[in-house]
Amino acid sequence: MEIIRTVPWMKEKARLARAENHVIGFIPTLGALHEGHLSLIRRARAECSRVCASIFVNPTQFGPNEDLSKYPRTFESDVKKLESAGVDVLFAPDAKEIYPAGFGTYAEVESISNRLEGRSRPGHFRGVATVVLKLFNIVQPQFAYFGRKDAQQVRILQQMTGDLNLDVELVVCPIVREPDGLALSSRNVYLSADERRAATILHRALEAASQQAKTGVRDAAQIQQIVIRVLAEEKLSRVDYAEIVDAETFEPVTVIGARPVYVLLAVHLGKTRLIDNLLIEPAQDSGALKCSL
Amino acid sequence: MEIIRTVPWMKEKARLARAENHVIGFIPTLGALHEGHLSLIRRARAECSRVCASIFVNPTQFGPNEDLSKYPRTFESDVKKLESAGVDVLFAPDAKEIYPAGFGTYAEVESISNRLEGRSRPGHFRGVATVVLKLFNIVQPQFAYFGRKDAQQVRILQQMTGDLNLDVELVVCPIVREPDGLALSSRNVYLSADERRAATILHRALEAASQQAKTGVRDAAQIQQIVIRVLAEEKLSRVDYAEIVDAETFEPVTVIGARPVYVLLAVHLGKTRLIDNLLIEPAQDSGALKCSL
Repeated sequence: MEIIRTVPWMKEKARLARAENHVIGFIPTLGALHEGHLSLIRRARAECSRVCASIFVNPTQFGPNEDLSKYPRTFESDVKKLESAGVDVLFAPDAKEIYPAGFGTYAEVESISNRLEGRSRPGHFRGVATVVLKLFNIVQPQFAYFGRKDAQQVRILQQMTGDLNLDVELVVCPIVREPDGLALSSRNVYLSADERRAATILHRALEAASQQAKTGVRDAAQIQQIVIRVLAEEKLSRVDYAEIVDAETFEPVTVIGARPVYVLLAVHLGKTRLIDNLLIEPAQDSGALKCSL
Repeated sequence: MEIIRTVPWMKEKARLARAENHVIGFIPTLGALHEGHLSLIRRARAECSRVCASIFVNPTQFGPNEDLSKYPRTFESDVKKLESAGVDVLFAPDAKEIYPAGFGTYAEVESISNRLEGRSRPGHFRGVATVVLKLFNIVQPQFAYFGRKDAQQVRILQQMTGDLNLDVELVVCPIVREPDGLALSSRNVYLSADERRAATILHRALEAASQQAKTGVRDAAQIQQIVIRVLAEEKLSRVDYAEIVDAETFEPVTVIGARPVYVLLAVHLGKTRLIDNLLIEPAQDSGALKCSL
């Protein structure tokens, strides 16, 4: 695996790969890699002739009171994991390489960016959209792989790639979970033993929502109430939001029916904020709903 | 010359040209073509193996009280001019093709966008940056040609292409003028006969600035005063701004010295607003200043 630190070198590497008709699969990460990231890499490895991952703790997507400085940095073990997973190129620039002095251009995806995660984390999605746009322009992938855990992020990046006429297809991959249901996240390492036990409450609340939908409940408010009731059972948790939204517009829905919806959760456990979601889609050829945790 | 109306067709055309190792030169326009545009096309024709022009009256760069609806549209004669100038492909999409329903992603170039033209025309540069970013992604040019008359626009687009790691080189071409000095502009057709005569005041004011700089005046305020005095001689004109700024930062300067500066004018003549500029650069190997009108 080649490790590349500079933009010109990465661009040249990408240019050569494209000139040789390689299909480039790209997995942008903030490092602190876990099985969720590795599942994206395995998917890219299976589908593309060249696999590039990036590790960049992007300062513009962290708010002033967020965890930029203490975000877990585990570069050496990340490199070993990527190498084992068959990554060809790791792009690992420093902040000055991506945001040199005088930098001042941002990508803004309106409307979807201001709700839910965007309301709780102002400027977050502007930072995400900007760095991903830059990384796409540098790495020149045909396919980019993202986990469904960050559902709103993925939707915003899909909107951006369409709106800006980019030639990248976003591949959305399933959420990877611990045996007890906790969605994998680099932030799980922040949790104390008690918080870690309590953190399964997100999955349990989404399980309850899934049960409701499967038994025919279509009223979003009713499902939302059950989710909030389950979350309230865990005294260590503090709910940021628990909403049921259209999977395309991210606007709240009242009835679950013809279009896919997400049940989206953001929950504080002590100083750690976790997100998770359930995708509910109409099943083909039946009135039933398909639930994906 | 092939005329292309849709994004997918234009992208495919560009993809094929790049696959055949063509060098694509691109001239984005709002139509209503004049000798200024044609000088850009001739330059592209001399430097590139494929020349693509676009005609798109971009709604997002016009303010609510601006001249979008009455902007001159002369498609048939534009086509003849482009054909004569040797353009290979004209990309002429309609507004829905560029901004389909649900569109919501914008490129924002901070700081430089809020001064001068950006202050007088809020949102203007956001619209320009967004459409040019989209057009670059669709047409995939290695070189793009712009006139120096829109100096601030060119600077913003240079900032954007650098910040977003785009592989496009911007080529800035001289201002083309009428025999009496008026800079060519599609908006000149709005002028009444009296206003047309009065419009030479911009060039005369810049000439006065140029004379001052050539005779050794380095004090920006002194030159600015002379420019404003000349502009005031023309009773049909109303000055929007007359400023001397650093050619890179577009911040006002006090002394003209080691770095290039622009003398920038925006002047109303009746309902028509015209812009023009003078570039002052330190001459190589001497203390003298080089002035480009």
